[in-house]
Amino acid sequence: MTRIHPTAIVSPEAQLGADVVIGPFCVVYDNVIIGDGSVIEAFCEIGYPTPRADGKPLCIGKGGRIRSHSLFYEGSTFGDNLITGHRVTVREGTTAGENLQIGTLDDIQGSCVIGDFVRFHSNVHIGQLSTIGDFVWIFPYVVLTNDSRPPSEHLVGASIGDYAAIATMSVVLPGVKVGANTLVGAHSLVGKDVPDGMAVSGSPAKIMCEASQLKLKDGTGRQAYPWINHFRRGYPEEVVSRWLDELQARQQQREA
Amino acid sequence: MTRIHPTAIVSPEAQLGADVVIGPFCVVYDNVIIGDGSVIEAFCEIGYPTPRADGKPLCIGKGGRIRSHSLFYEGSTFGDNLITGHRVTVREGTTAGENLQIGTLDDIQGSCVIGDFVRFHSNVHIGQLSTIGDFVWIFPYVVLTNDSRPPSEHLVGASIGDYAAIATMSVVLPGVKVGANTLVGAHSLVGKDVPDGMAVSGSPAKIMCEASQLKLKDGTGRQAYPWINHFRRGYPEEVVSRWLDELQARQQQREA
Amino acid sequence: MTRIHPTAIVSPEAQLGADVVIGPFCVVYDNVIIGDGSVIEAFCEIGYPTPRADGKPLCIGKGGRIRSHSLFYEGSTFGDNLITGHRVTVREGTTAGENLQIGTLDDIQGSCVIGDFVRFHSNVHIGQLSTIGDFVWIFPYVVLTNDSRPPSEHLVGASIGDYAAIATMSVVLPGVKVGANTLVGAHSLVGKDVPDGMAVSGSPAKIMCEASQLKLKDGTGRQAYPWINHFRRGYPEEVVSRWLDELQARQQQREA
Repeated sequence: MTRIHPTAIVSPEAQLGADVVIGPFCVVYDNVIIGDGSVIEAFCEIGYPTPRADGKPLCIGKGGRIRSHSLFYEGSTFGDNLITGHRVTVREGTTAGENLQIGTLDDIQGSCVIGDFVRFHSNVHIGQLSTIGDFVWIFPYVVLTNDSRPPSEHLVGASIGDYAAIATMSVVLPGVKVGANTLVGAHSLVGKDVPDGMAVSGSPAKIMCEASQLKLKDGTGRQAYPWINHFRRGYPEEVVSRWLDELQARQQQREA
Repeated sequence: MTRIHPTAIVSPEAQLGADVVIGPFCVVYDNVIIGDGSVIEAFCEIGYPTPRADGKPLCIGKGGRIRSHSLFYEGSTFGDNLITGHRVTVREGTTAGENLQIGTLDDIQGSCVIGDFVRFHSNVHIGQLSTIGDFVWIFPYVVLTNDSRPPSEHLVGASIGDYAAIATMSVVLPGVKVGANTLVGAHSLVGKDVPDGMAVSGSPAKIMCEASQLKLKDGTGRQAYPWINHFRRGYPEEVVSRWLDELQARQQQREA
Repeated sequence: MTRIHPTAIVSPEAQLGADVVIGPFCVVYDNVIIGDGSVIEAFCEIGYPTPRADGKPLCIGKGGRIRSHSLFYEGSTFGDNLITGHRVTVREGTTAGENLQIGTLDDIQGSCVIGDFVRFHSNVHIGQLSTIGDFVWIFPYVVLTNDSRPPSEHLVGASIGDYAAIATMSVVLPGVKVGANTLVGAHSLVGKDVPDGMAVSGSPAKIMCEASQLKLKDGTGRQAYPWINHFRRGYPEEVVSRWLDELQARQQQREA
């Protein structure tokens, strides 16, 4: 059963799935489609109207949880199991896959393409036109930029490959391609493309080594990257089992 | 006609101009003057009381739009056509010109002087006592500091010249003067004054070249700075025509 | 007398001390203990429920002021005289001493230990498992990290010694110990332990000098660190008089 808190202001035109919960002091605008079982917490604004959305709705899939004080514009689409932190701001024109996690204070500027199982930690800024693969991790205070000569009309988004990890307070410059299975160290300024599998760091960022050469610091000596080697918290069983198959295949390749 | 949402809490002492709109779940305090046609969106707090304002009101000019979840203290004055993003925090004692844009999550600490047509992108932090000229651009995660030996009582604001552009995640140290028509590259630490017209970058920032030597990356080979050469989005016709006159005058000077 | 704004939603199970004030549009959950005389301003959420708190309450001491739009999870404990800025987010499992100041937009991720008289300026991010001494200052956009190979399960918090000052936009890497009476310069990446009394800066941070060699820039030539030499704003008399005794004792030691 859908439960709307008596203090919430919900447009009669908003389309709410089964068992949707809308918390206190929420504002839900007209052009909104929310999937079954999704929860919108207190103080959220959902489907904030903008002419830039060209009339496209905000679509939130099934089983989502939008934490309190968050704001989503109309005109973006999110797959199932979206989870956000608090005070998230998401603008129009973005398409994201399933199982996205958006952190507290994140600011997604819109017109981005985001894959499945992406994890944004707190306070990241995803500039317009960014392209983000699957299973990407972006850590606090990372900014993906897009304006090659600020201010200009020449906007080119950054692109981040599958399984990449971008550590705290790094900036990725406009149009830069960060490859798959890469690591960008903390406090880096990434001005050049990062080839698949490499670890870079510094301001400006330079190649340190292959990411696979980095060991975990937990005393086990295990390989830290690709991180699917050791990190599985929060991923469903079928994903982890696919990873195990991949890792085994690589292992066999190496041995052959 | 003034429209106040029935859930908004508006002091009878607040002075609202003609056609002002106050959104849901807003709190408007006593010491507030809002110009004709301004819109205050949902969840805003306007005129937050503080003894540091010495009884001075918050003045917002005509035609402003304060986006949702924003907070303005009493004791600051903004010219006409102020536009903000969401979750803006603005403290007391600041005077700003016309056509200011403040981005989502910006934190203006108060006691600043800000010119006309300034553009703050998302998540900038403008320390107390900052002085900002006209037509300045400040990009995400830039911090203007003021404490020369933190913590101390010796606070000196940074000063940013007309038409300067400070790119993402740069820090300007206390008392530093960034000149007119300059560019500060992304992820820079600016500890020394930047002469007019120069481009600097790095941590610590060093002079790269004259900003006018930088070309646009859009394939046209046009000069990127001063950015009025090519960027006019959002400026009124009379401003752009003044710029065209200036550019022509410079061109003639160079040819003479 | 306790005053609860008529628009606030306060659980009857929440334990409010004498003279507590709850502002408009607040949500106060069940598992909350608020000390005498504390003020919760507008749009706050207090005691946000989480299974990770293991049923522990949120305890806020006496005389606190939680500024508007802030959010505290259940399961943390704060001493008397807590003061926050706006839009603060504080998660479960943290224990903090008395007279803590948390700045606007700060994000305290939980499971931290924080001493007495700590000052967080705006927009700092305190990662889980951080340990912070007494009288520490942390300036805007500083991030204390904890994941040694992100993402991994090997989380080790940073630790910050008494009277340390960490300037704007620095990152402290996981497990790093920043000693007592230290200064970390702005825009630094701190990857190695900082011995007591040293000043470091840069990305990566290197030792500059003993902090005590740095002079105030106010023209007096006074020693800038330890900052208790010259900075006393906002500290109670008994603290300042203890500092004066300490400074005198050091002076005598030096002379002996």
